[in-house]
Amino acid sequence: MSRIAYVAGRYVPHLQAAVHIEDRGYQFSDGVYEVVAVKGGHLVDEEPHLARLARSLGELRITPPMGEAALKIVMRETIRRNGVDNGIVYLQITRGAAPRDHGFPKAAKPVLVVTARRTRPPNPSLARDGISVITIPDIRWQRCDIKAVGLLPNVLGKQRAREAGAYEAWQVDREGRVTEGTSTNAWIVTAAGEVVTRAADHAILNGITRCAVLAIIRSEGYEFVERAFTVAEARSAREAFLTSTTSNLLPVVRIDGEPVADGKPGPLSGKLLAAYLTHASAA
Amino acid sequence: MSRIAYVAGRYVPHLQAAVHIEDRGYQFSDGVYEVVAVKGGHLVDEEPHLARLARSLGELRITPPMGEAALKIVMRETIRRNGVDNGIVYLQITRGAAPRDHGFPKAAKPVLVVTARRTRPPNPSLARDGISVITIPDIRWQRCDIKAVGLLPNVLGKQRAREAGAYEAWQVDREGRVTEGTSTNAWIVTAAGEVVTRAADHAILNGITRCAVLAIIRSEGYEFVERAFTVAEARSAREAFLTSTTSNLLPVVRIDGEPVADGKPGPLSGKLLAAYLTHASAA
Repeated sequence: MSRIAYVAGRYVPHLQAAVHIEDRGYQFSDGVYEVVAVKGGHLVDEEPHLARLARSLGELRITPPMGEAALKIVMRETIRRNGVDNGIVYLQITRGAAPRDHGFPKAAKPVLVVTARRTRPPNPSLARDGISVITIPDIRWQRCDIKAVGLLPNVLGKQRAREAGAYEAWQVDREGRVTEGTSTNAWIVTAAGEVVTRAADHAILNGITRCAVLAIIRSEGYEFVERAFTVAEARSAREAFLTSTTSNLLPVVRIDGEPVADGKPGPLSGKLLAAYLTHASAA
Repeated sequence: MSRIAYVAGRYVPHLQAAVHIEDRGYQFSDGVYEVVAVKGGHLVDEEPHLARLARSLGELRITPPMGEAALKIVMRETIRRNGVDNGIVYLQITRGAAPRDHGFPKAAKPVLVVTARRTRPPNPSLARDGISVITIPDIRWQRCDIKAVGLLPNVLGKQRAREAGAYEAWQVDREGRVTEGTSTNAWIVTAAGEVVTRAADHAILNGITRCAVLAIIRSEGYEFVERAFTVAEARSAREAFLTSTTSNLLPVVRIDGEPVADGKPGPLSGKLLAAYLTHASAA
């Protein structure tokens, strides 16, 4: 089955799927995106993803290229045409193509691109054995709450992690506090058993998986608080983990080469992952 | 004459000039660019532009898609095919197209796009009457010395300036010091007659016009210093101005609605502009 992409109103072969060289996504990173998981043929947490997309567009004053109902149809049709039962849908909306000029163009029409592809779930060994993270300075802009395509610092950070043999890089603000990973949210469980993750301020992207795990924590009655934590706190935590649409929930067992607690995935991470997978397969 | 763009090895009609939807410039802002002025058929300060391009690529570890000699030929051919005698050449190099994943792809081939278009010189009334700037917080990433295409904060800043009836927005760091405009460098002349512009640290893009004007200042023997200045200093300056490839040098006569000195372009700005135009027509 050859892949098909939706580009500005048409379904086209993936190989030929293209946007104009003056698309403002390409020249200015003037656009936003979402990645939605597909599990057993259904879209996981579709509504909060679309709500966040609407918020990102609103913050940038980009007019949605179509209504939410139509967008849902395009996502489903793209999934169908690519035979995706388990995988992801990627959608990107830019301010459109216009002669290059920094200010908003008067005449540009926002451009929607949607792709879908099959993916394998995260390798089970990652959840079983845990993963490593490194810490790096957070050099990103100050509106990381907007899911914009200006991801170059995230790219550089992820690359650093990989070259260090780690799964992810946790970014650290000027005050020494972890903001988030380059494509994941960061969590710890303190020695007192309290779950901690940074509040959804302008320094982080409010992950949909983050929100789903927070909802589980609340409904299960675990102690938790949304606040920033330092790297030192994370190193001395009882457990640490990360969350994202494509990683689900993965225990972090090493930070900058040093073990977290006994260097093995903690029990709460395992329970939360199980509960999240139940949520994702039902949602 | 219909416009022609160079895209990854081919000269194509501008209307059909496109990059793949998985080009990393489009999905990650993983690319760099340059804008070079064309005056009287020649490229202004081509060598420093190409040197800066090489530096940006090096910082991001993107392999140049061709050697400098070949790139010069492509720029000239694009200028020729578009009949540009006075205007600009725009060139963008991204890490290439690859299945979406934050880290560097193993197989991607960097993609070069070159366009050229005629432009009119800045409206003479701007240099005669001066322009207004507003000041806004600098919310950009911490590697603005790399000329990357992740320009969304610049887009938002320029738009704010336009909506405020201003020509440009000067971005201000956490210490209250001006970094630069959204697409221009910022300068003042102090009451003591000293020219001041921020040193080329990681917070600004080291403008080629900035460098040319600094060279003029040195050779003419004007007092100058490269250091950060505050908004308050700029408001009480004797003169203020900005520089860029497309704006040349423009006197700033209002900051946040308040006049700089007597609200008229200062004499040094005029002299430096004249000297810069001489340089640009000869260079």
